[in-house]
Amino acid sequence: MTKRIGLFGFGVVGQGYYQIAKKQKEKWIPDTIVVKDQKKRRSSDIRFSYDSQDVFDKNPDYILELISNMEEAYEYASEALKRGITVISANKKMLSAHLPELINLQKVFGGKLLYEASVAAGIPVITNLETHFEEDNIISIEGILNGSSNYILSRIFNNGLSFGEALRLAQQKGFAESDPSFDINGSDVASKLNILILHAFGKFVGEKQIATFGIQNLGEDEIALAKSLGLKIKLIAKAEKDYRGISAYIIPTLVEESNPFFGVENEYNAVKINSEHLQDQFYQGKGAGSLPTGAAVYGDLIKARNGFGYNYSKVNFDKPLDEKLLNLGVRVLIKSKSEEIIETNIFSPEFIKCIDGFYFSVGKIKPKNLSKLNELKEVSLLALPDFLTSSDVLKSLEGIKKSEELLFK
Amino acid sequence: MTKRIGLFGFGVVGQGYYQIAKKQKEKWIPDTIVVKDQKKRRSSDIRFSYDSQDVFDKNPDYILELISNMEEAYEYASEALKRGITVISANKKMLSAHLPELINLQKVFGGKLLYEASVAAGIPVITNLETHFEEDNIISIEGILNGSSNYILSRIFNNGLSFGEALRLAQQKGFAESDPSFDINGSDVASKLNILILHAFGKFVGEKQIATFGIQNLGEDEIALAKSLGLKIKLIAKAEKDYRGISAYIIPTLVEESNPFFGVENEYNAVKINSEHLQDQFYQGKGAGSLPTGAAVYGDLIKARNGFGYNYSKVNFDKPLDEKLLNLGVRVLIKSKSEEIIETNIFSPEFIKCIDGFYFSVGKIKPKNLSKLNELKEVSLLALPDFLTSSDVLKSLEGIKKSEELLFK
Ligand SMILES: NC(=O)c1ccc[n+]([C@@H]2O[C@H](COP(=O)([O-])OP(=O)(O)OC[C@H]3O[C@@H](n4cnc5c(N)ncnc54)[C@H](OP(=O)(O)O)[C@@H]3O)[C@@H](O)[C@H]2O)c1
Ligand SMILES: NC(=O)c1ccc[n+]([C@@H]2O[C@H](COP(=O)([O-])OP(=O)(O)OC[C@H]3O[C@@H](n4cnc5c(N)ncnc54)[C@H](OP(=O)(O)O)[C@@H]3O)[C@@H](O)[C@H]2O)c1
Repeated sequence: MTKRIGLFGFGVVGQGYYQIAKKQKEKWIPDTIVVKDQKKRRSSDIRFSYDSQDVFDKNPDYILELISNMEEAYEYASEALKRGITVISANKKMLSAHLPELINLQKVFGGKLLYEASVAAGIPVITNLETHFEEDNIISIEGILNGSSNYILSRIFNNGLSFGEALRLAQQKGFAESDPSFDINGSDVASKLNILILHAFGKFVGEKQIATFGIQNLGEDEIALAKSLGLKIKLIAKAEKDYRGISAYIIPTLVEESNPFFGVENEYNAVKINSEHLQDQFYQGKGAGSLPTGAAVYGDLIKARNGFGYNYSKVNFDKPLDEKLLNLGVRVLIKSKSEEIIETNIFSPEFIKCIDGFYFSVGKIKPKNLSKLNELKEVSLLALPDFLTSSDVLKSLEGIKKSEELLFK
Repeated sequence: MTKRIGLFGFGVVGQGYYQIAKKQKEKWIPDTIVVKDQKKRRSSDIRFSYDSQDVFDKNPDYILELISNMEEAYEYASEALKRGITVISANKKMLSAHLPELINLQKVFGGKLLYEASVAAGIPVITNLETHFEEDNIISIEGILNGSSNYILSRIFNNGLSFGEALRLAQQKGFAESDPSFDINGSDVASKLNILILHAFGKFVGEKQIATFGIQNLGEDEIALAKSLGLKIKLIAKAEKDYRGISAYIIPTLVEESNPFFGVENEYNAVKINSEHLQDQFYQGKGAGSLPTGAAVYGDLIKARNGFGYNYSKVNFDKPLDEKLLNLGVRVLIKSKSEEIIETNIFSPEFIKCIDGFYFSVGKIKPKNLSKLNELKEVSLLALPDFLTSSDVLKSLEGIKKSEELLFK
């Protein structure tokens, strides 16, 4: 029995889906494809529509929401769910903003919503959380969740490119979002972590609450420091739960060779889950790109056809879904032109040192302060692994500065 | 609605399951637990039975088959499936021997059979193959699939233990099977690879066909060689498919630092899947032990309760399930006391060299010959990564031998 499919969006992801669907035994080719820009040149083999009602008029069984816009995506998805239609979405920004309402619409009208492609594209992390980990108690979930910023870090570390060169390359390859600032300032990661927290811990915290610091201000000093210590910098998102509650933050982090994130390069994403019974698991795969993301969308369609839906098994529906995050300290290296910024943000400092007009300090920062600092131009932050002492950091920094001096003499 | 559960076996896995079930909201405590040895001392809190009919008399909804014996496991599982009961099994030896019959029983009588714990214990590889990869075209699947032999290799490489010491430690920790020779000679891995091949490629090849060489003959020379080249030895199972058919083998393999298997230590297992659309994915997690394996069993129960079953989606049921494996050459380093062994097994040799009474050669071996050599005492084999030239190998071997000479002078 063929099913009717309506598709919104025919960009990187929509075209990836289409290319895959055409090759399958079950050619789930959309009846209608709605796009936005009437002036764009398009393949003449496919008929496009510019009116979203065209999709609904055909009474589709499934809707694929693969557009870049967030408000309209919410409109299409919620309209479909109200009609009891199953929706597949890749739109983390939209999902992260509206999951509580969308969960409610699923319950009331019986349609399903699947969105594996929205977090870590090709990696089946949401499916695994909803099946394999359904009855396990998750302690922490950590990830490299933005393919484009990870690609930039790889090009900087492995090929010596500048930040700007690396960003342009990521855009050329189609890994970056239409507005790349979301990729590099951690905002895209916050959407994804917010979704993961719901599936791992059963609570909706909202991405505004998630302490976020991106890679946009990473300077040569921090890169040289990492290299001189044999470490790499990765943009790590982390959420953990203990008896007090949930904490979560996103911050560029120094990782050592024995950390499985160390080897995650280019557009790959990775997720590490620590739980009471299954203990620790690590998944790595393509986190962006047309085919891996399109395949995750196609996979959701097959799962839905087989009767699969998310149970939101960690959610206790008798209690409020919303939860306030804890604000526990994270140990960081901070660099700033202003000593005041350091003094007002860092507590228990292990040192404060001025080198070449920059203030450096190692100490703890309250996650809440991260997001405020993320908007400043001249502050850079790195989370530190426990084993790294402040004297190691200081020695390396001084070494780097000295060799720079020698270079410029 | 509570479900009736019958449990066979209360060893490492059975107890792990029990410990987890007791803590859950849905306390899926078995009505009946059947074990074998009437003389064993057991906890007085739990009532045991020694008669398998006790399980069936209670009309269970689910049966957990967690025993160490293979023939009786098949009896219990097939009897249950004939009654349309859903069966969860961890018994790779039994499954690998009987999957075609068991698939047929599922079709005829409508009961389901799930067995995530049987391959890579805690890692949801079968579930992912059956859901996320259902419509993707898998090119290769590779893994570290035996926790106990991986643990032994880690102790040898990282702590300088001897083979025997490391094996005893693995047994003490409960990672080794009751007969540890299955762990170290690759036989346990062959059962698992056989199961994976069915889910990845839709064909039943049978473990007897899978070319298998274990770690039991790994000598100091091979370990010193790996170390001097900055590499590690891992017991890797690999299956791949191209237009000609499927090839598969299990062999100790030299891996380089950039290979994700390099960092897989101790009782961890890992699986790497390469496919057309999702491209490459890598999963790592506990591959043995009471809680991770028990959690995988509990997870299967929850999945079955939610309506999940394996679709065997890669299988074409209009064609024979059995398939003959290809016999393509694998590039190895071979070491033997007998030059004849080398000459009759290695083709396209890059060198043959006698050092200290041992013959070493780098060349290709037909997978078929691996299993024959696996039964000999004095032959050792290592698969080589492509980048490693035979002159690198030779130079390292000669270096090792020279420093040994110096040591003994
Ligand atoms: N790219 C990735 O690797 C990736 C990975 C995971 C998730 N995602 C998510 O997947 C979604 C799509 O990303 P993408 O990379 O495919 O974006 P894209 O290449 O920019 O394409 C966006 C598509 O959406 C269409 N569109 C925008 N607003 C629309 C509207 N109101 N109605 C109908 N169509 C509309 C555009 O139409 P026009 O053709 O007329 O411009 C275009 O076809 C986003 O939510 C993104 O965050 C992307
Ligand atoms: N250990 C692991 O980490 C692991 C991981 C993955 C899969 N597995 C698989 O899981 C299965 C169980 O392994 P295990 O490590 O739990 O073994 P185990 O510790 O040796 O325990 C085996 C249990 O099976 C019982 N048993 C044996 N024959 C029986 C029979 N005919 N009828 C009823 N009970 C019988 C034994 O009874 P008694 O108590 O009377 O001796 C014992 O309770 C095996 O197939 C194994 O390959 C194990």
